[in-house]
Amino acid sequence: MLTLYTWSTPNGRKPLILLEELEVAYNVQPVDIGKGEQFAADFLAISPNNKIPALVDDEAEGGPLTLFESGAVLTYLAEKHGRFLDAAGPERYRALAWLHWQIGGTGPMFGQLGFFALRAEEKLPMAIKHFTDEADRLLGVMDRHLAGNTYLAGEHYTIADIACYAWTLSATTYLKEVLTDSMRDKPSVQRWLDTISERPAVQRGMRTLQT
Amino acid sequence: MLTLYTWSTPNGRKPLILLEELEVAYNVQPVDIGKGEQFAADFLAISPNNKIPALVDDEAEGGPLTLFESGAVLTYLAEKHGRFLDAAGPERYRALAWLHWQIGGTGPMFGQLGFFALRAEEKLPMAIKHFTDEADRLLGVMDRHLAGNTYLAGEHYTIADIACYAWTLSATTYLKEVLTDSMRDKPSVQRWLDTISERPAVQRGMRTLQT
Repeated sequence: MLTLYTWSTPNGRKPLILLEELEVAYNVQPVDIGKGEQFAADFLAISPNNKIPALVDDEAEGGPLTLFESGAVLTYLAEKHGRFLDAAGPERYRALAWLHWQIGGTGPMFGQLGFFALRAEEKLPMAIKHFTDEADRLLGVMDRHLAGNTYLAGEHYTIADIACYAWTLSATTYLKEVLTDSMRDKPSVQRWLDTISERPAVQRGMRTLQT
Repeated sequence: MLTLYTWSTPNGRKPLILLEELEVAYNVQPVDIGKGEQFAADFLAISPNNKIPALVDDEAEGGPLTLFESGAVLTYLAEKHGRFLDAAGPERYRALAWLHWQIGGTGPMFGQLGFFALRAEEKLPMAIKHFTDEADRLLGVMDRHLAGNTYLAGEHYTIADIACYAWTLSATTYLKEVLTDSMRDKPSVQRWLDTISERPAVQRGMRTLQT
């Protein structure tokens, strides 16, 4: 059985969406980061970075597998089930490029924007502008690419779209206070968000652990 | 032939090191980010995020391949040549977990620390402390893990080590002004850095484009 340790954050939603898309059986083990449960010793044994999501697959090839980092969890599940990531060829690597772009780009940069603009007690205008500008630049990169491509890797929906969806959506929800203006001139990002939001598996993945 | 578009930065050094480890023929196309060459139209066609590194393989399976994002480039080259990343099994996914941990962790966080502590004209003590603390936390995660493992994925040197090496080394070079104290109590990180620094291919990859 697959057990997913997760919470209702963008990173936490990525594997929930993929598991719903795959229609495989899995358990959800909530890790309430509002209560600091990610720092518990038994969770650290699974996730050495004290972050969700993490996955345990006690029926993995080669013995029980414990995995952390959302990008690695998505890649593992896609490769195990042979879906949403080609096994070889150019579309495989275009999907991995956009997956890594999200992991190193919108994830940390939107995350830091949330910290400096919304959560930090001391508001630093230069830092808020720095991360707002970078978030706008990243959304612009996506928008230019999606103007000529249905999905991030090309014609097919892949784990790159799942990874990018959860964080990009936050530009219209959690981060709308700072990114509404940026989203106004990103029609292709909005079209892509709307397309993905219509998928039933995405809707199920977004409802799990909803508080 | 493989053509690597790169520069002498931590992200730019990762594929240089891997190509030297693989002992395959490749061309280097320097993209001088000090002169803003990453913004040139012909480079944007290769790297939609305007960042190095990027790779063109005109002999890829399925036709010429253009690839951006260092994590995707490392994965592609490792899979093409069947080295430094297992094709299946637990060590494959442990390597991908630590690769993604670097892409979403030390890369952006050390990068932002460099911006706020060294490059920004306006020095913001709260932001500098925020990123120094996060860099110290990340080095601590690595140190605990490497206390019980020779390499990041376990017993074998993989693309996870190559990805982490270039950024971790910056804690003792580019970022030493802010991270020397942090490195004092990270003996396992230092042992691992020393081990990797001794590899001839790593030394060759670090010398390329040295200015």
